[in-house]
Amino acid sequence: MIHNDVLREKLAPLVRSVETIVPEPELLAKLESGRSLRCKFGIDPTSSTVHIGNGIPLWNLRRLQDLGHTAVLILGDYTATVGDPSGKDKTRPMLTPEAIEANLATWMDQLGMILDMEKVEIRRNSEWFRDMSFLEVLDLTNRMTVQQMMERDSFENRWARHEPISVREFIYCLMQGWDSVQVRADIELGGTDQTFNLTVGRRLMEQEGLPPQVALISPLLEGTDGQEKMSKSLGNAIGLTDSPKDMFGMAMRISDDLMPKYVRLATDISEEDEQALLAGNPMDAKLSMAEALTARYHGQAEGTRQREEFVRVFSRREAPTEMEEVEPPAPGDDGLWWIVDLVKHCGFAKSTGEARRLLEGGGVRLADEVVSDWRARVALTGGEVLRVGRRKQARLVIAP
Amino acid sequence: MIHNDVLREKLAPLVRSVETIVPEPELLAKLESGRSLRCKFGIDPTSSTVHIGNGIPLWNLRRLQDLGHTAVLILGDYTATVGDPSGKDKTRPMLTPEAIEANLATWMDQLGMILDMEKVEIRRNSEWFRDMSFLEVLDLTNRMTVQQMMERDSFENRWARHEPISVREFIYCLMQGWDSVQVRADIELGGTDQTFNLTVGRRLMEQEGLPPQVALISPLLEGTDGQEKMSKSLGNAIGLTDSPKDMFGMAMRISDDLMPKYVRLATDISEEDEQALLAGNPMDAKLSMAEALTARYHGQAEGTRQREEFVRVFSRREAPTEMEEVEPPAPGDDGLWWIVDLVKHCGFAKSTGEARRLLEGGGVRLADEVVSDWRARVALTGGEVLRVGRRKQARLVIAP
Repeated sequence: MIHNDVLREKLAPLVRSVETIVPEPELLAKLESGRSLRCKFGIDPTSSTVHIGNGIPLWNLRRLQDLGHTAVLILGDYTATVGDPSGKDKTRPMLTPEAIEANLATWMDQLGMILDMEKVEIRRNSEWFRDMSFLEVLDLTNRMTVQQMMERDSFENRWARHEPISVREFIYCLMQGWDSVQVRADIELGGTDQTFNLTVGRRLMEQEGLPPQVALISPLLEGTDGQEKMSKSLGNAIGLTDSPKDMFGMAMRISDDLMPKYVRLATDISEEDEQALLAGNPMDAKLSMAEALTARYHGQAEGTRQREEFVRVFSRREAPTEMEEVEPPAPGDDGLWWIVDLVKHCGFAKSTGEARRLLEGGGVRLADEVVSDWRARVALTGGEVLRVGRRKQARLVIAP
Repeated sequence: MIHNDVLREKLAPLVRSVETIVPEPELLAKLESGRSLRCKFGIDPTSSTVHIGNGIPLWNLRRLQDLGHTAVLILGDYTATVGDPSGKDKTRPMLTPEAIEANLATWMDQLGMILDMEKVEIRRNSEWFRDMSFLEVLDLTNRMTVQQMMERDSFENRWARHEPISVREFIYCLMQGWDSVQVRADIELGGTDQTFNLTVGRRLMEQEGLPPQVALISPLLEGTDGQEKMSKSLGNAIGLTDSPKDMFGMAMRISDDLMPKYVRLATDISEEDEQALLAGNPMDAKLSMAEALTARYHGQAEGTRQREEFVRVFSRREAPTEMEEVEPPAPGDDGLWWIVDLVKHCGFAKSTGEARRLLEGGGVRLADEVVSDWRARVALTGGEVLRVGRRKQARLVIAP
């Protein structure tokens, strides 16, 4: 959270999706300078799918654009060949240049759903790394100690678990920091898992005699399973390229525990509306969250449409999925069935007498119509639901 | 030590100055191939002085040359700019190219005292590192894990002591290993402090599909203080550029404990002669060791000359350095002194009677002449030594 009140006010549109600002006074000073600030966000093209978790800092970036600041996207085309620990702390494979370009193109399409792409400054880090000599790399690697590197949580954890850390991964941190030097970043945006790398950028900028960037850190969003950080490879991610229908459906699957976090981070629902929503009917709340989440990426009309569609499909499906299918006995010569026979045949009564009592009591419905005449003969076309009371029901299926 | 008997025989001239061969069977196979083997030795031009400790692997290299193998010297002109932990585990400063060239020239002069320089293959590692791209560096840094790096003793110790380790130092290990790949080394020579780096070379060669080099590791020689590894900066080193006189004098200063190691590693005294020498008079043993050490670098004639000179100077100096200087009282009118007065004046007798008894006993010598007449008047020109018995002596100094 942001502690400084003036800063909270200046960053009002972002305030709910910022976890930490390192350090707040420096950001306040930068904002008060009145300059258009250079806001860096690094794109890792080892993956091509952007999910709504990645979207959190990107929406913050969009809000900074709207406040008149400059979004500077770093395409890590050079860095992508290095590999980086993923959420699961595995070393990522190196990619071919072609795969990297394909991924970057996909990124750009998806970023267009969030950012004002016309005002974005796009930089490839190959621009400064391509011609860097070994001597310059050696200078870079002398900027940090092994001890400082090991302060990074993911390295520390892997060290503790005796999981291999490639020396190359240390260089990756330094490269990301060097990107900040190259673009003279004022702010770098990232999730909490990027905290260490963002401070490396600060350090390198200071060493170069530049005003250090401020780290604007957003919370991470758990995946729809509620267990792990959102990740496409774990199958718990809602991707920006997912259809509105899938997006809505995935959002509906999250647990109630995650609701406050999803409402706050994955939708544009305001703080006041959030209170009312979370206090109300849980199913309605989830529908509203899924609607707002879908609306964020596909517009309000699409969000509303998906909600209606979901409700319709969900209601229709509810019966069949919980219902036994029963093939009735052969009809009489007139093509009709005794209602008491159907009640017995479905196992809802053991005798004609019991069936009669149920029918006379008004507890039997066929195709949503109450049948209270126990001597009635009824017509079936197949697919009608026979209900007895609130619990017993069966779909009457007539073989062709 | 070398365990394999056949290998011991084949390497007879080196056997006393090898601590470990990693691994012995591979070296045996290489030797039995009958090929001229490529024997790598790395020159670190961050320092210009070569001392007799550095000389140990270099003499092994010379013996390999004499056995028909090829000495391949790697001039670490590129690596020198990286820095490396010294014996004291401090990060060395980077050097200017000019300083590196000056150091290398000095190295070459000194190597000429040991190697057959006409048959040496000299390679500069700038040859392969100068044009290495960042991507290639990244590939190199992916060859080892942080955990593997931390197995190096000096890193492990510094980690334990919370002393900073620059990320750059990891790269240095990899560069040294890459040198081995580039020159297709069969053997790399070094001291025990290089064991880790030599195995990095093995690893990288294997990764490149090359037959891995064998590490031929020599013991380290303690400095003349007997405390620390020999190092010019600690003032405990005998340098190859030191004059024969200084070399001999430094060698004479080592403690008796170090004698066996100096005889074995710093001289060409044979194993049989060593036994006799160490069993005899300690001072003679030390003179013989210092003579042989000096002879190794400056020839037998110079060694012998320094021994004679040292004995002469040492005997002459023994007296003055241990002696008090005393100014005698004024002489008589004849310019002479009563011998009894001089004995009393120097504090060797409390009364004329005591002085007389000492003189009559024959225990008083002036300028190495016994004076037994207690009534004698003696002449002094200044500088004469007055001795009483074996313990008491004083130099008589006459103020000008």
